[in-house]
Amino acid sequence: MKFCFADRMANMNGTATREIFKLLSRPEIISFAGGLPATEALPVKALGEICNELLSSPAAYKLLQYGTTEGYPPLTDAIIETVKEFGVNAERENVLVISGGQQGIDLMCKSFLNAGDVVLVENPTYLAALQIFNSYQAKAVGVRADENGIDIADLEAKIKLHKPKFVYLVPTFSNPTGKTYSEQHRKEIARVTAKHGLPVLEDDPYARLRFSGEKINALYHYAQDDNVVYLASFSKILSPGLRVGGAVGNAEIIRKMAICKQGTDLHTSSLAQAIAAEYCRKGLLKPAVKASLPLYASRKNAMMLGIERYMPSEFVHTNPDGGLFVWGEFAGRKLDTAKLLNRAVERNVAYIQGSVFYADGSGQNTIRLNYSNVSEEKIDEGMKALGDFFKEEISKAKN
Amino acid sequence: MKFCFADRMANMNGTATREIFKLLSRPEIISFAGGLPATEALPVKALGEICNELLSSPAAYKLLQYGTTEGYPPLTDAIIETVKEFGVNAERENVLVISGGQQGIDLMCKSFLNAGDVVLVENPTYLAALQIFNSYQAKAVGVRADENGIDIADLEAKIKLHKPKFVYLVPTFSNPTGKTYSEQHRKEIARVTAKHGLPVLEDDPYARLRFSGEKINALYHYAQDDNVVYLASFSKILSPGLRVGGAVGNAEIIRKMAICKQGTDLHTSSLAQAIAAEYCRKGLLKPAVKASLPLYASRKNAMMLGIERYMPSEFVHTNPDGGLFVWGEFAGRKLDTAKLLNRAVERNVAYIQGSVFYADGSGQNTIRLNYSNVSEEKIDEGMKALGDFFKEEISKAKN
Repeated sequence: MKFCFADRMANMNGTATREIFKLLSRPEIISFAGGLPATEALPVKALGEICNELLSSPAAYKLLQYGTTEGYPPLTDAIIETVKEFGVNAERENVLVISGGQQGIDLMCKSFLNAGDVVLVENPTYLAALQIFNSYQAKAVGVRADENGIDIADLEAKIKLHKPKFVYLVPTFSNPTGKTYSEQHRKEIARVTAKHGLPVLEDDPYARLRFSGEKINALYHYAQDDNVVYLASFSKILSPGLRVGGAVGNAEIIRKMAICKQGTDLHTSSLAQAIAAEYCRKGLLKPAVKASLPLYASRKNAMMLGIERYMPSEFVHTNPDGGLFVWGEFAGRKLDTAKLLNRAVERNVAYIQGSVFYADGSGQNTIRLNYSNVSEEKIDEGMKALGDFFKEEISKAKN
Repeated sequence: MKFCFADRMANMNGTATREIFKLLSRPEIISFAGGLPATEALPVKALGEICNELLSSPAAYKLLQYGTTEGYPPLTDAIIETVKEFGVNAERENVLVISGGQQGIDLMCKSFLNAGDVVLVENPTYLAALQIFNSYQAKAVGVRADENGIDIADLEAKIKLHKPKFVYLVPTFSNPTGKTYSEQHRKEIARVTAKHGLPVLEDDPYARLRFSGEKINALYHYAQDDNVVYLASFSKILSPGLRVGGAVGNAEIIRKMAICKQGTDLHTSSLAQAIAAEYCRKGLLKPAVKASLPLYASRKNAMMLGIERYMPSEFVHTNPDGGLFVWGEFAGRKLDTAKLLNRAVERNVAYIQGSVFYADGSGQNTIRLNYSNVSEEKIDEGMKALGDFFKEEISKAKN
């Protein structure tokens, strides 16, 4: 039978991330292509104990029955408590429990986007967000950015030109660049978006993974017209496998997102919600994240050292204070990192071509490197292989 | 700030099911409005033990890391094994793990529906499915049905007239009617849909909850052109709170649904998947469901007895062999059960107005009654209150 799929499917092939997962599954590959938190930081034992307590309690049956779409109230309260650390103040009506941060992006899109609508993003931005905008047949338009974040003048010009439905940003330890917007920069974004009546979706899964520099409040904190929806996720600070996060924002928007969620998955797994809630209630989140930071720092440092030792001198890169990613560009070189990836994999090392993070498909000479789930030893080995590979390619291109 | 939401939100208010949840939360209400499996049948102890084993195993960290969108392979295999019981044969490429059956409906819609497209449904059909079609700005068109299922001639006429994208059916212990299509009926649906090149979405969460009559194969089993997508769910036979199910069907469709799921929630909670997989692997599913059937049977019988004792003679109703629901109509009476609901609740008894299950909003004099999560004693008490209430209303209407 020949099937007549929806128009939205025409541009949805899921290739980029699927290939990445395939690469990750070959054990001989040293992969800097992923986005996984350190496996060593997953609190297996604590979650085992919590599960045991939850399922042996007299109220255990409640976790196995249907729940409400808005979320398990103790988790709602835990989210309200934890986001305060970044200056995010909320009541229960401002919170929707979501099945991971990714669902938050999807529900924001479902609530706001018609086919043909525009979303403004930093160029480059999170690959999966671009794929989600695409699934709503919306157009992502990239805003210019430098090392401090998006260019405010370009942001305002593109708001006027494109009349976007919202702006999507990852202001802290951005995926893919690792960059963090300054306080002044956040205030400017808050000012411009309020002035133009534009909602902002602030995706913030990495902020707690800070191993250097000073903590900064969320963009949400600086919002001048209650126009920022803040996405918190437990994926990078507790467990991605649980699929639990929270969307925090304007009650009217959160209510629309809840209506959308109701049709999508009814509610997030109650057991997963209760595990996350109990982990927070016991006060385990902050100390466990703190204890994991030296590991992240040493891996990031190993990658910096590997870049210095092995990568060609043309490789200009970020040096993040937290999060999972380093971003680099082969300045002045016309390398096509997408085409080169297969050949790098033949040398048993993987990265992600930077172009997939660009709304306009540019950035051919850029790559994203992930250090969070690779040992220091493997980072050295992998960076040597990668450095040798790119040096050869640059040398070939010169001849 | 004034928000400009997507066009799809105009008709999405989520009211009907939200009101139901509110009713359920008042302890003095005897609610026949829900759709919950019997709380007594939830295998709390077994799941506690499984959780404990899973999270104390050396591979536990895998359940806390990211997984693949397609699903946790042991669960994929468990789904393949369990659906065989209903004549559903599948390979791994035919299976997508989903976050509950509801997500299967959503992903089928996302894969197939453009705004303005038509989906054929039995009249009446599952309320949440209608809401999901609505969220894709598609139109649900109801096919006439009698006690054996949809009218084949009307089905074929409406296929020709509306050129639908697919047909959505709940052929076994239907929500809302409790009806089951005969084998002959399934074959006819398979023949007609194959003839017209039309996919079918078969929603089958209740088939295992059979307490009388003979087991029947799924509609999928009779498909003549690999055009049926079968939705299996663990919500009614293990735990709705886990949010785990499986979509089984044509590999091309399943691949499209997986691409859609990738953007929606990345993957289903790994721990929830592993719990369901292990529960199946240990062989607990079949005996536990079997052990729960006398409870469901006695509750259904209590409701039949309550109808006979207390309901007005005009109340014509189904008498299901399984599942969760009884459906009834006040034959020849112009009662508006939607308007009457609030007054019934004042008498501490709740039902759902049948009109919300009709694609065209008809069925004003129908109601759906749920017996699965109410004790026999409460069923008697509630049916007396409901019967007295409707007798008074009919008497008033006569005067």
